[in-house]
Amino acid sequence: MSKTVGILGGMGPLATVDLFAKIVDNTPAVLDQDHLRIIIDNNPHIPPRVEAILQGGESPLPAMAASAKLLAKAGADFIVMPCNTAHYWLAELQAAVDIPIYSMIDNAAAFIAGRHRHLSGKVLLLATAATIKLNLYQQAFAREGMTLLLPDQNEQIMIDKAVRRVKAGELANNPYLNEFNAMLARHATAGAAAVLAGCTETPLLFPYFTVPLERFDATLLLAQMTIARARDGEGQKE
Amino acid sequence: MSKTVGILGGMGPLATVDLFAKIVDNTPAVLDQDHLRIIIDNNPHIPPRVEAILQGGESPLPAMAASAKLLAKAGADFIVMPCNTAHYWLAELQAAVDIPIYSMIDNAAAFIAGRHRHLSGKVLLLATAATIKLNLYQQAFAREGMTLLLPDQNEQIMIDKAVRRVKAGELANNPYLNEFNAMLARHATAGAAAVLAGCTETPLLFPYFTVPLERFDATLLLAQMTIARARDGEGQKE
Repeated sequence: MSKTVGILGGMGPLATVDLFAKIVDNTPAVLDQDHLRIIIDNNPHIPPRVEAILQGGESPLPAMAASAKLLAKAGADFIVMPCNTAHYWLAELQAAVDIPIYSMIDNAAAFIAGRHRHLSGKVLLLATAATIKLNLYQQAFAREGMTLLLPDQNEQIMIDKAVRRVKAGELANNPYLNEFNAMLARHATAGAAAVLAGCTETPLLFPYFTVPLERFDATLLLAQMTIARARDGEGQKE
Repeated sequence: MSKTVGILGGMGPLATVDLFAKIVDNTPAVLDQDHLRIIIDNNPHIPPRVEAILQGGESPLPAMAASAKLLAKAGADFIVMPCNTAHYWLAELQAAVDIPIYSMIDNAAAFIAGRHRHLSGKVLLLATAATIKLNLYQQAFAREGMTLLLPDQNEQIMIDKAVRRVKAGELANNPYLNEFNAMLARHATAGAAAVLAGCTETPLLFPYFTVPLERFDATLLLAQMTIARARDGEGQKE
């Protein structure tokens, strides 16, 4: 029997849909019954993470812990969380439940360090200003002995604007696509070999990238890790 | 505070992703916090429904009832179920929990009867042979005083083949698209004015329909009803 996956979601709902879809799409399955049991708590009423960090707003931790407990009680064997910023509270959240919570950030760093170590110093992080300010990805890669490339300040402002337009549904018609591709071209010329989408919106722009850089999507990597962890249990009594 | 939605899912997982995505896409929201709390039990290990009905296989009812209880205990205020065939057990399932379970089939019939009553006898049901054999849609429309058009036997065989190819990811390249459109053209000539997707795969072929028939998608109608039911609670103490 495979393990039951818990998704602590709702931060935001679209990213939760995206992770769920990527798990289902990437599970080897012929019949419904080959798929994984997944319990999702899509709770968009968790207080906003960026505001809590940057503006001293209400902490999201109590609501996140309640959701983790709900998932554990409902039968989840482990938890994943499709929100990069929320990983700021991961250690405290883990203390609230007895089942493991696997980090999407550590997972992306471990995957790239394991198979693409030669890309150290050549992976451009595409994330929001808040995620970059928290150093979550930079620290995870540093623990793997790798460094990341970061956009400069003006590029970061443009990325945040492009991400907001993605949230509003603007993909092929995103007004920042030309600037985005110009930025990718500059980094490619300067030695970048890959991009890492460390914000759940940026992979949605991948189809419109015109610069031939390798592309890593932390949400897709999380989906693949989730499937592997859940299927680890196959044939065992859980 | 809006109500918490419970989705009894996994039958199949793709249809569950589709309903979740349609709820999120259709919720009026600017911030994450404007979205609905949704608890999903995606349990693809529920025994197969069609086999239970047509071949006397294991009943899915006990597993469905366990899932409904899990959702109620986790805090869902009502339950919806993105699987047409599973509605065969709706009355027995409802007896297992104290929160309401709203029918996607009755909802589609009520919507069309309420706003498109002039289409009685002119809506072609696009569903699997199993759903049609169970008379679920035909009975729901009869209760509303309306009748549905059904494909003939050869057309139904073709629809089931096309649906299997959709499940395998074949949309624009679905080998049955020409036959499908020829069928739609025949029914349009004979007086059909609309199609009703009463199978969670058929709406995925809507973009490739070349015949100008009105299109109803039972999953989208379920998403819209779910949003309305959940937001009914706004401003009330739940």
